[in-house]
Amino acid sequence: MSCDFLALAQPGVQKLSPYVPGKPVDELARELNLDPRTIVKLASNENPLGPSPRVIEAIRAQLDELTRYPDGNGFLLKQKLAQRYEVGIEQVTLGNGSNDILELVARAYLAPGLNAVFSEHAFAVYPIATQAVGAQAKAVPAKQWGHDLDAMLAAIDTNTRVVFIANPNNPTGTWFGAEALERFLVAVPEHVLVVLDEAYIEYAADGELPDGLAFLNTHPNLLVSRTFSKAYGLAALRVGYAICSAQIADVLNRVRQPFNVNSIALAAACAALDDGEYLNRSRASNAAGMQQLEAGFSELGLEWIPSRGNFIAVDFGQDAAPINQALLRDGVIVRPVAGYGMPTFLRVSIGTETENARFLDVLRKVLGR
Amino acid sequence: MSCDFLALAQPGVQKLSPYVPGKPVDELARELNLDPRTIVKLASNENPLGPSPRVIEAIRAQLDELTRYPDGNGFLLKQKLAQRYEVGIEQVTLGNGSNDILELVARAYLAPGLNAVFSEHAFAVYPIATQAVGAQAKAVPAKQWGHDLDAMLAAIDTNTRVVFIANPNNPTGTWFGAEALERFLVAVPEHVLVVLDEAYIEYAADGELPDGLAFLNTHPNLLVSRTFSKAYGLAALRVGYAICSAQIADVLNRVRQPFNVNSIALAAACAALDDGEYLNRSRASNAAGMQQLEAGFSELGLEWIPSRGNFIAVDFGQDAAPINQALLRDGVIVRPVAGYGMPTFLRVSIGTETENARFLDVLRKVLGR
Repeated sequence: MSCDFLALAQPGVQKLSPYVPGKPVDELARELNLDPRTIVKLASNENPLGPSPRVIEAIRAQLDELTRYPDGNGFLLKQKLAQRYEVGIEQVTLGNGSNDILELVARAYLAPGLNAVFSEHAFAVYPIATQAVGAQAKAVPAKQWGHDLDAMLAAIDTNTRVVFIANPNNPTGTWFGAEALERFLVAVPEHVLVVLDEAYIEYAADGELPDGLAFLNTHPNLLVSRTFSKAYGLAALRVGYAICSAQIADVLNRVRQPFNVNSIALAAACAALDDGEYLNRSRASNAAGMQQLEAGFSELGLEWIPSRGNFIAVDFGQDAAPINQALLRDGVIVRPVAGYGMPTFLRVSIGTETENARFLDVLRKVLGR
Repeated sequence: MSCDFLALAQPGVQKLSPYVPGKPVDELARELNLDPRTIVKLASNENPLGPSPRVIEAIRAQLDELTRYPDGNGFLLKQKLAQRYEVGIEQVTLGNGSNDILELVARAYLAPGLNAVFSEHAFAVYPIATQAVGAQAKAVPAKQWGHDLDAMLAAIDTNTRVVFIANPNNPTGTWFGAEALERFLVAVPEHVLVVLDEAYIEYAADGELPDGLAFLNTHPNLLVSRTFSKAYGLAALRVGYAICSAQIADVLNRVRQPFNVNSIALAAACAALDDGEYLNRSRASNAAGMQQLEAGFSELGLEWIPSRGNFIAVDFGQDAAPINQALLRDGVIVRPVAGYGMPTFLRVSIGTETENARFLDVLRKVLGR
């Protein structure tokens, strides 16, 4: 006889549905017996440029040290981030991707009886991290696919400890400006931690989006979360970070696993942060690709949500699942977002010019136009 | 005005003292203005052989894929582990180091009002992971530095959900045999999850220690945790794993971060698992180094705890802190274990023959013998 270890798990954990990532190329290749080299994956908001040569070099220089534990304090990377953003090193927390940052917040500040507020159509990890610790996930209806910040304010109650906002938001690509952010921050009760997720912020041209870090001094309940997975092109390595008050960082560092970011990831992130040229190329390639996709959608008579990320949500005005299946059969992987309350949409990551063109060609064929 | 975000943190988190890792070589070099190349670090139970060439090769082959997310399911590594250990792939959970596995267990099965039982002088992460989720950490007095399994059984109460046992144990190096393990498993209530931490198991010669995996079929409440950080030499990369019932693995995989093990780490672990030659060299080098240190201690008239790990706890019969400081000044880093209730001991990782000799020389000088 054996016990029911599902029933013995914490109630929040029992109800968890794991995050569903974009389908890996190898998986589709196995399933449909396709040559992986012919598959185009625009499903995980990955940087299509391939890795920065300076990053590769930094990793090679690190390979002799594989038997040594990483620096658990991530001193060099934290120092570099602190210098770059003109904050104290004690304000920086490193995460195994920014996913880790979101979880650290949930584990430090949420528990049964408490809740976190976030927007409809927002990143799936907000409710997952919240529910995993048994807290209530309060999704607030969106306004024109974007955050309804006033409604989010109204949803904050005495048991709210965390609000997650994303600028721009994934998977919609929607954004808010500096004034709206300021108004929101002023109105949020000071004991509620505002997690501003800026995973895609580097894709915005200068001044297009507010810089969350500029609000840290006046709003000690603000935490800005960023990642090396997108514009910096290090999704494989899992490096994210939070910048916030030293006090909140101290709490997050207590919860953090001692070696949460590995040595290769630390070295790569240091090199990536210094590679301004790669970042500029990422931004330029993304802007061009966004135009290419918008022009293609326009020609196909499709609507889309204007986006400031490295992805775009396109509306088919009908159940998008069969279209997604047809794309897969032709070796094109994009992301279904029915789970985000957007069943008529697909989210397409901006690829290279060639990848975007291939996607548009296959889409044209699938739609019979 | 700003709020007290330490007071707002969960009570268990507020009381956490973070894990203290071995002092990194670069840190000591900075502090004492030493040449890092002259420093010998025997403080973190790292593999002294340096990385396996097959692992380096596997990593190099992976460097083109840095912009892609890791396979969140870790399919290839899990498949390899399942084949090697003749278990189902659904019984394997991958962790960002086995530290991650220990935390997944705590988050899934512990909460305020519940407790975990473990031994005195056991790995610091057992109480840290337990307290982080607000559960009670019940340390049971050791017997001759090892687990007192009968006393641990007696400490299990109606609120116990997890028991952590380690074979061999870190930092003492003590171990128990197959009969003792069997007796213990038979007596533990079936709803209590037994986490058998075998981080150092690969260092034991065949048959020296029981293979925890052999008990899985008869004890569905058993979870065996292992790591690539020690005998496999991948501490920098953070890969550990659990093997347990499919049901418990399903629960742990719900709590697990979707991309907890990075791509480089996955590729390296696959290569390491195939490199039996490296594992054999690790084992042989460790056995020789253990003899070397024991002979040295014997000559110096020091007592030690016999160990089956890649480390040895040596007793100075007096406060070991000043001895540790003196070793540091001479560029030798070992591990103080006062925090483990062993103030007269230092834990020394087994190094290369040269490193061990250097440590013994400096120790001889420090002790004035």
